[in-house]
Amino acid sequence: MANMLNEHRLVRALLRKPVDRTPIWIMRQAGRYLPEYRVIRSKVKDFLKLCKTPELACQITLQPLERFPLDAAIIFSDILTIPDAFGLELAFLEGEGPYFQRPICTLEDVEKLPTIDPEIELRYVMDAIRMTKRALKDRVPLIGFAGSPWTIATYMVEGKISKNFTKIKKLMVSEPMILHRLLTHLSTTIVSYLKAQVMAGAEVLMIFDTWGGVLSCADYLDFSLSYMQEIVANLNFELERENAAFAVPSSGGGQVIKKVPIILFTKNVGQNLEALSETGCDAVGIDWTLPLDKARSLVGHKVALQGNLDPAVLYADPDFIQRSVQLVLRQFGKGSGHVFNLGHGIYPDVEPEKVAIMIEAVQSFSTRYTYE
Amino acid sequence: MANMLNEHRLVRALLRKPVDRTPIWIMRQAGRYLPEYRVIRSKVKDFLKLCKTPELACQITLQPLERFPLDAAIIFSDILTIPDAFGLELAFLEGEGPYFQRPICTLEDVEKLPTIDPEIELRYVMDAIRMTKRALKDRVPLIGFAGSPWTIATYMVEGKISKNFTKIKKLMVSEPMILHRLLTHLSTTIVSYLKAQVMAGAEVLMIFDTWGGVLSCADYLDFSLSYMQEIVANLNFELERENAAFAVPSSGGGQVIKKVPIILFTKNVGQNLEALSETGCDAVGIDWTLPLDKARSLVGHKVALQGNLDPAVLYADPDFIQRSVQLVLRQFGKGSGHVFNLGHGIYPDVEPEKVAIMIEAVQSFSTRYTYE
Repeated sequence: MANMLNEHRLVRALLRKPVDRTPIWIMRQAGRYLPEYRVIRSKVKDFLKLCKTPELACQITLQPLERFPLDAAIIFSDILTIPDAFGLELAFLEGEGPYFQRPICTLEDVEKLPTIDPEIELRYVMDAIRMTKRALKDRVPLIGFAGSPWTIATYMVEGKISKNFTKIKKLMVSEPMILHRLLTHLSTTIVSYLKAQVMAGAEVLMIFDTWGGVLSCADYLDFSLSYMQEIVANLNFELERENAAFAVPSSGGGQVIKKVPIILFTKNVGQNLEALSETGCDAVGIDWTLPLDKARSLVGHKVALQGNLDPAVLYADPDFIQRSVQLVLRQFGKGSGHVFNLGHGIYPDVEPEKVAIMIEAVQSFSTRYTYE
Repeated sequence: MANMLNEHRLVRALLRKPVDRTPIWIMRQAGRYLPEYRVIRSKVKDFLKLCKTPELACQITLQPLERFPLDAAIIFSDILTIPDAFGLELAFLEGEGPYFQRPICTLEDVEKLPTIDPEIELRYVMDAIRMTKRALKDRVPLIGFAGSPWTIATYMVEGKISKNFTKIKKLMVSEPMILHRLLTHLSTTIVSYLKAQVMAGAEVLMIFDTWGGVLSCADYLDFSLSYMQEIVANLNFELERENAAFAVPSSGGGQVIKKVPIILFTKNVGQNLEALSETGCDAVGIDWTLPLDKARSLVGHKVALQGNLDPAVLYADPDFIQRSVQLVLRQFGKGSGHVFNLGHGIYPDVEPEKVAIMIEAVQSFSTRYTYE
């Protein structure tokens, strides 16, 4: 079964193998723009409770799949589950986003952070993945994810969404060693968290570095990219070891090699795209500010590219959406290694009908690019 | 006198002429990080009233000059004076930023926008400039400024600071002609506004395109850059015409050529830097996410560069600040055409002592780069 899924066009495209057409999934595809999601949300007001209830997380994960012929499911969760599991007490204030009652301020705060076992403190995520995996019946691959160490750290230090990232940048320039300790602890945790997601059934992994783009190039390399690179290396090592331990000589003499592609995404990656593509990851997510032809010329054959339609295009009429989809496909050009997506999460006030138009356009127009 | 100021190192650097050392000024240098500003602000709570009272705007403009050996004054004002003059009723809500009671929604709203005469509706800005110019006694050049059409339009359409720019992007993809009309009207207004600022005494002009970086490359060219290009061309034409009309054959037979350098700044300019440098402007502001060596290799000899220390560096200790200043100077390298600045506005909680350290570092370290 695992072998069969290796052949799904999403995994194939992420590994830059030939595909029949360009696969598509949508960042935040399970979410507020779907009326069926809003029905659940109207009953369970607490966003975090949705994440923490595997039955609901599973149900929400599957909602967009029931409506659209998407090429992936992505587990419904949040990048802040890890600091919540650390005991920082995550809350979501109405209209204000995430909020930590106990942000990280001192070296002592960092040293007190516990080592967590994903199958204990974050078991709800693993249960949701297991449940979803069963329900999916291998229709499409399931994507697991985490925030990048830098991005998670911004919330842990700032306490909430920040405009200038004052607190964490103060820490960065005045007490860099405290920040490095925090980022190291996060990296270790993220490796075990993502590995546990794979063990539970995730077939593709993505790391969201939402705030790496607020750093200078030098700081990005030091405080964000280097940790993602370490995570990718350690994850690949851990997963291969797991694989080897699992492999038993079968009658055919072969062994199950289940390569888990890893996608890295830094919003506003700017000048750092080349460095990001050299981390050992399989694919890089591109936001809509960088055309894919330019991106491809920068990364060469090192990685697949995921993206990058401007989410605002889904406000337009069908004709405009179709032309915009065609432009993204044309900008990537011929050959394998493209996963269609928006350049960032879908906006909550998009009409689902527009999503259908986008998906249909990708399906019908992309075959001319994937056949060489 | 005008001729003498042409020789100030700021103007010289912006025109890529040799200078004795790298000039420095600071975006938002007159503002909240200064205790003397907070004294005024505590008496006059209404930010807009400060802008609209020439005596106060002048006093605030001069405050940083009294404290630091800066190479420019920039008139204390706001990029939203224009829509306020259109009658959109600008207000500043405590902790929430600017807010328009009557945002732009329809074609009718755009058509109803009045044509304004900067010397009437925005006379308070011109009076503040005249007053400041007199008080400066040509010590340093005075910078006038405006927002870019796209950036001003985002506030006019969204009504306030926006996360996803939903409203203006909806307009952009569904009714682009309405948006183009708005941008055209803004461009015309900005040309007359900036010209009036020069007539009142501004010797350098800067256009702030704070939100151009949220657009895809194609949309940036269409909806932001093309209008800035038009403004630069029209301004240069208008100012040259003004100059010619003003020129009278003197005993020496020469004529006063007062070139007003124009600086364009798009935050997160990303892939669009080259295009921005080809608009006919004299200098481009660079935020801290793009190292100046990279920027310089992209723009060649077309423009001067202004920037680009990460404002967060001013949270660090003196030694770190000095090393960071040196790095920026080294990244720009040898030769003229560098104006030192932060990569964005100074943060309100920076200690003024740190600013002094930065300025001193620029003054002492930059001579080795400006002497070739």
